Amino acid sequence: MPPRRRPVPPLLKSRAAALQKRLRVADLDGLLVVEPVDIRYLTGFVGDDSWLFVPARGTGLVILSDSRFTTQIERESPHSRVVIRTGAMADAVAGLLGRKNIARLGLPRDHVTLGQRKKLGKALRGIKLVPCDDGLIAQRAVKTDDEVKHIVRAGKIQQQAFEETLAFIEPGMTEAAVAAFLEYRMRALGADGVSFPSIVAADANAALPHAIPGNTKIKKGSLVLIDWGAKFRGYCSDMTRVIALGKMKPKLREVYRVVLDAQLAAIDAIKPGVPLRAVDQVARDHIDKHGYGEFFGHGLGHGLGLDIHEEPRLSPLAPKDGVLKPGHVVTVEPGVYLPGVGGVRIEDDVLVTPRGKRVLTDLPKDLDSAII
Amino acid sequence: MPPRRRPVPPLLKSRAAALQKRLRVADLDGLLVVEPVDIRYLTGFVGDDSWLFVPARGTGLVILSDSRFTTQIERESPHSRVVIRTGAMADAVAGLLGRKNIARLGLPRDHVTLGQRKKLGKALRGIKLVPCDDGLIAQRAVKTDDEVKHIVRAGKIQQQAFEETLAFIEPGMTEAAVAAFLEYRMRALGADGVSFPSIVAADANAALPHAIPGNTKIKKGSLVLIDWGAKFRGYCSDMTRVIALGKMKPKLREVYRVVLDAQLAAIDAIKPGVPLRAVDQVARDHIDKHGYGEFFGHGLGHGLGLDIHEEPRLSPLAPKDGVLKPGHVVTVEPGVYLPGVGGVRIEDDVLVTPRGKRVLTDLPKDLDSAII
Repeated sequence: MPPRRRPVPPLLKSRAAALQKRLRVADLDGLLVVEPVDIRYLTGFVGDDSWLFVPARGTGLVILSDSRFTTQIERESPHSRVVIRTGAMADAVAGLLGRKNIARLGLPRDHVTLGQRKKLGKALRGIKLVPCDDGLIAQRAVKTDDEVKHIVRAGKIQQQAFEETLAFIEPGMTEAAVAAFLEYRMRALGADGVSFPSIVAADANAALPHAIPGNTKIKKGSLVLIDWGAKFRGYCSDMTRVIALGKMKPKLREVYRVVLDAQLAAIDAIKPGVPLRAVDQVARDHIDKHGYGEFFGHGLGHGLGLDIHEEPRLSPLAPKDGVLKPGHVVTVEPGVYLPGVGGVRIEDDVLVTPRGKRVLTDLPKDLDSAII
Repeated sequence: MPPRRRPVPPLLKSRAAALQKRLRVADLDGLLVVEPVDIRYLTGFVGDDSWLFVPARGTGLVILSDSRFTTQIERESPHSRVVIRTGAMADAVAGLLGRKNIARLGLPRDHVTLGQRKKLGKALRGIKLVPCDDGLIAQRAVKTDDEVKHIVRAGKIQQQAFEETLAFIEPGMTEAAVAAFLEYRMRALGADGVSFPSIVAADANAALPHAIPGNTKIKKGSLVLIDWGAKFRGYCSDMTRVIALGKMKPKLREVYRVVLDAQLAAIDAIKPGVPLRAVDQVARDHIDKHGYGEFFGHGLGHGLGLDIHEEPRLSPLAPKDGVLKPGHVVTVEPGVYLPGVGGVRIEDDVLVTPRGKRVLTDLPKDLDSAII
């Protein structure tokens, strides 16, 4: 007799139920989830090298894993059924599905590779493999209250760590040393870890939107761009602030004001029903109007949650018919990058509420606060 | 006239040449590289959201990226040709290849998703898309001297950070606090970052091979498993040590000796030509013989380099005909996990040399050194 399992928590149950409904609409008998973050979202299990089978009907979600994770699954996802495989994943899937009545199996097309499909095709004779959009990206984009709480908590941790870093930073330190301290404080304050490797970019390096902290020294009068984030119970926060040590050059002060006003205007535009492209356009128009349009080369923002980059994207490339919905959490982060000189980006996290928005992060960002 | 480019460094040139030779053998006219680490390996560029086109002949490697990375590519890969896209990636690929004579385009089957292939199929009419093994996994498994130097440097950093952590650790601290300090010291000592989120697992938590450091407190008499690694210039190191605060229970002392002897025997077996499975078997036989076989549920080790998990795998699931080659760098990390009690894993990094092996990491690991 199999061991008795604890009942599935209501939240996870409703997540799976929404997915299962889509599977039935698509006339699929089940889905193979291969993306670790999706597996975490549906089961609570945090490991990797594991897949999840979701049937279109019933409660028979099954994690396919290996013995490294036996104890971990029992802890993190005690309600899940588990197959501990000893051979190839495709064979484990075949062993599991051979006992079920599966004619059409969905494969998430944004995650399954050509090689995985080939192996599954060989192992699963008689089952039609159907590449599909599993809808989890859109489902995960709309956060529940619990998810928002985790993002807020991650934001509190990252903000406190930043304030400690402002007290720590001194001329002569390298970018890497500042990044190390900042990340240390986030961990020490209770973060699971960082949302992404921190960016600490001084002067000309700040013109690289994705700079890697290196041995460049921060000097008196330096402009430093810091883009960092904490994870709390898997959920990411993400902010950017720019600081100047002692003084900021007139040109950069001007850019700072333009970027800040663009950000405030874009945040102001956020509410349910507004097209994703329109929010981006608000910031872009403002920056264009001041003559810096060519130096703002990325989208305005992105969703965030279990992944640091999620839907929806606030970008000129967002789907034409994409609109903001209550429960979306997005970054708003316009930037202007002047090659060889420096860059300014200002970023906060914003929740779309039923009637408007709530800004989840609140470190000061007026020009005076940026000069330390 | 396009800007003059700096010549491609010989190392990158020879890496690309080896790949191009395989493309010609497979009768492909080019390859789309989508995996960031492979792109770094071939060009030096460290960003993401970018693809690389490699023609079967000539020097026309082209990075397809977006404006966030313009300046970064110019710095990291000044010899590369770049297409800065403003629309969808598949359209940028079509725009590039439309001007070239490409009939058969390879898609790395272990990285390209079903969705990416579909979009490429629509955009690239008239070009046959061929899922293939690009051979980069095998190529990257054999390290050059420069790559080994980076791994050794990463190892030195991680070892010094560990020694500082031994001086820092005290009863009453949480696992998370120890992990935070350890990672901070690696960053401060010059690591790019961590190879992977550190594992610091006390007592029963050490029975989870992939435990996540949490609020469990380390006590007097605790057994603590620490699995951590540093990255230096992109290259990973990876070690595990187990320490006991003050004393170690007789049962765990016995397990410690069994695991250590298994590890030493497996390292001793390493030399070119030895089957991958055989190295795993040496450790497995030793642990089996002492009655702990069922508690050693993972493979013995894995290759490491730009990724923390690379080829070759030392595992019962390794290809039957797989053998060690000079230039392979592998971890050797047997472990025994006793649910509810604790676990012992001991891990070092080993280079396969033309005549034998060189152990790249050298922190003490005898039983006495484990009791602090």
